[in-house]
Amino acid sequence: MQNFADRLNKAIKEKGSAICVGLDPRMNQIPKHITEIAAKEHKDPFVAAAAAIIEFNKGIIDAIHDLVPCVKPQVAFYEVFGAPGMQAYKETIDYAQAKDLIVIADAKRNDIGSTAKAYADAYLGMTDVYGESRAAFDADAITVTPYLGYDGIKPFIENCKEFGKGIFVLVKTSNPSSGDLQDLELKEGGSIFEVMGNLVDSWGANDIGETNYNFVGAVVGATYPRQAEKLRKIMPNTIFLVPGYGAQGGGAEDVKPCFNEDGAGAIVNSSRGITYAYEKSEKYDEKTYDKAARAAVEAMKKNLESIF
Amino acid sequence: MQNFADRLNKAIKEKGSAICVGLDPRMNQIPKHITEIAAKEHKDPFVAAAAAIIEFNKGIIDAIHDLVPCVKPQVAFYEVFGAPGMQAYKETIDYAQAKDLIVIADAKRNDIGSTAKAYADAYLGMTDVYGESRAAFDADAITVTPYLGYDGIKPFIENCKEFGKGIFVLVKTSNPSSGDLQDLELKEGGSIFEVMGNLVDSWGANDIGETNYNFVGAVVGATYPRQAEKLRKIMPNTIFLVPGYGAQGGGAEDVKPCFNEDGAGAIVNSSRGITYAYEKSEKYDEKTYDKAARAAVEAMKKNLESIF
Repeated sequence: MQNFADRLNKAIKEKGSAICVGLDPRMNQIPKHITEIAAKEHKDPFVAAAAAIIEFNKGIIDAIHDLVPCVKPQVAFYEVFGAPGMQAYKETIDYAQAKDLIVIADAKRNDIGSTAKAYADAYLGMTDVYGESRAAFDADAITVTPYLGYDGIKPFIENCKEFGKGIFVLVKTSNPSSGDLQDLELKEGGSIFEVMGNLVDSWGANDIGETNYNFVGAVVGATYPRQAEKLRKIMPNTIFLVPGYGAQGGGAEDVKPCFNEDGAGAIVNSSRGITYAYEKSEKYDEKTYDKAARAAVEAMKKNLESIF
Repeated sequence: MQNFADRLNKAIKEKGSAICVGLDPRMNQIPKHITEIAAKEHKDPFVAAAAAIIEFNKGIIDAIHDLVPCVKPQVAFYEVFGAPGMQAYKETIDYAQAKDLIVIADAKRNDIGSTAKAYADAYLGMTDVYGESRAAFDADAITVTPYLGYDGIKPFIENCKEFGKGIFVLVKTSNPSSGDLQDLELKEGGSIFEVMGNLVDSWGANDIGETNYNFVGAVVGATYPRQAEKLRKIMPNTIFLVPGYGAQGGGAEDVKPCFNEDGAGAIVNSSRGITYAYEKSEKYDEKTYDKAARAAVEAMKKNLESIF
C-alpha cells in the first residue's frame, strides 16, 4: 500500500502546484442556471440543493483537475442539507477521484475508541454490513481534531496504514480566536500548538514514506506565519495543510514558512477565492464560473511560484 | 423561547431521573430478527442497515421514554452507513422527540465562522433553501469540541438563543488519553481542562435561565472524579453531560462530584450498558432486548439514587 504522503507528493509534482481547492457549496453563490434546473427536476428542496451542488462541483472539478493535486470538500456545507446533502458529498468525492484528484474530507471529526473507529471507517475505510464490505465516503484523507488525545487519533492512523490514507490534525488554526486555547503557554515551556506539533510529529514518526514525509499531516493556518515557522522546525517530516490563504487574509509570503526549504511539505488551500471567483471578476460571469475558477487557480499558482 | 437548561431540568424533574440513554447502533449487536427483516425489505445493504437501526432504536425509545429525560444518538454510528445512515439519524431524532424525549446530537462538531454556522444550522437550526426554511436534523442540543476557541462556539450559541437549543462543550473527556492535552499544566496556573472550564462558564454567563443553569453545558467524564470536583466549582451554573458510566468503568460514586450539592446540574449517560443489556442478561434475550434496556435503566436509576 503506497504511503499517502508519497501519493500526495507525487501528485503535487505531476500537477506542478501545491494547491488544494476547497469545495464549500453555498446555495446563494451557485449560479442560477444550475439551481433553477435542479429545482425543476426535484420537488424536495434538499434533494434539489444536492443536485445543484453536484452539478456545480462537477463544473469546478472539470475546470481545475489538471492544475491541482487535490480538493477539500467541507462536509458542514453538505450536512446542512441532511441525508441528500451527504449523498452529494459522496458523489463529489467519487467524481473528483475519477478525475484523478486526491480528496481531503474536511470534517474535523473527533471521538474516542470505537466511535473514532466508526468515523475512520466512514471516511477512510470500509463498513462491514450484511457480510459485505462497502465504503461509506471513501475519501483519501480527513482532517481531525486532537482535543481527546491519542485515543481519538489511533483508529484513524490504523485505517491510514490499512487503506493508504492520510489525516491532517488541527495544530494551529487560521481563525482569529485560535489563540484562545492553542497559544496558551505551558509550565513545561512552549505553547499548546507547539506541544501539539511535537505530538503530531511523534504520531507519524513510524510511517515515513519514500518522499521523506509521513501520512499524519497537520493543519497550520496561513494567517499565523511566525507560529508556522516554529512548527515547520518541530515537524520536519509532516505535510502542512494550509487554510487561510486569500479570503481569510493570508498571502503568498504568509504561507512561505509552511514549506520546507526545498519547496516541499505543504499544500495551500483556497475555497471561496477560487470557486466563487466569478463574483469578483470583470471578465467572467455566473455562466462562466468554471472558467473564472480556472483563471483564479492559475493566478494563485503564479503567486505561489513567486515565493521560491 | 424557553432556555434549553430550563427545559432539560424540567424534564429531569418530571421523569425523576438524570439519565441519558446513548443510541449507538452496532449492526452486530442489533437482534437478528430485526436485521433479517430489514435485509428482506431492502436490497441495498446501507439502506437495510438504516432500516434495522431505526427499528432497533424505536424499540429502545418505546421501552425507556417514560423513565429518562433524554437520549444521545452518536452520529458516527450512523455516518458509517453513508447518506442512508444519516436519514436513520434524522428519523431517530424525530421519533424520540415525538415521544417527548430531549435529543442530544453527539457529534463533537467544530469549525470556524461560516462553517461552524453551517453545522449549527444543520443540528440546531434551519437551512434556508429555495425560499424555504427547513430543518436538516433539528436536535435539541449538540456536543462541540473547543480546540478552535470562541469563533467555533459563537455560531452554536447564537442558534441556541434563537431556537431554544443547547450545547455541551468537551472539557474533560472520559477516555484514557484525555490527559494528553487536557491535563497539561499552564504557566499562568491550572491545567487546560480548568481553563476550558472557565471559558465555558464565561460563554454561558449571560444566558442563565430560571432554574439557575445556562444552555452552554460541559462534557465531563465519570472516569475522572477528582477533576470533576474541581470543574463543578469552576462552573456552578453549567449542566454536565457525563459519559463513562458503566461500560467505561465509572460508577455511581464516580459521577457524584459532577452534581451540585442539591442533586442538580448533571445528566449521566449510558449507552452499551442499556441498549445491549440483553447480551449480559440471564432473564432477557435478543427478542426482549427492549425489556432488558428498561430493566437496565431502572437499575441505573436506583444506583444513582443511592448517592444522595
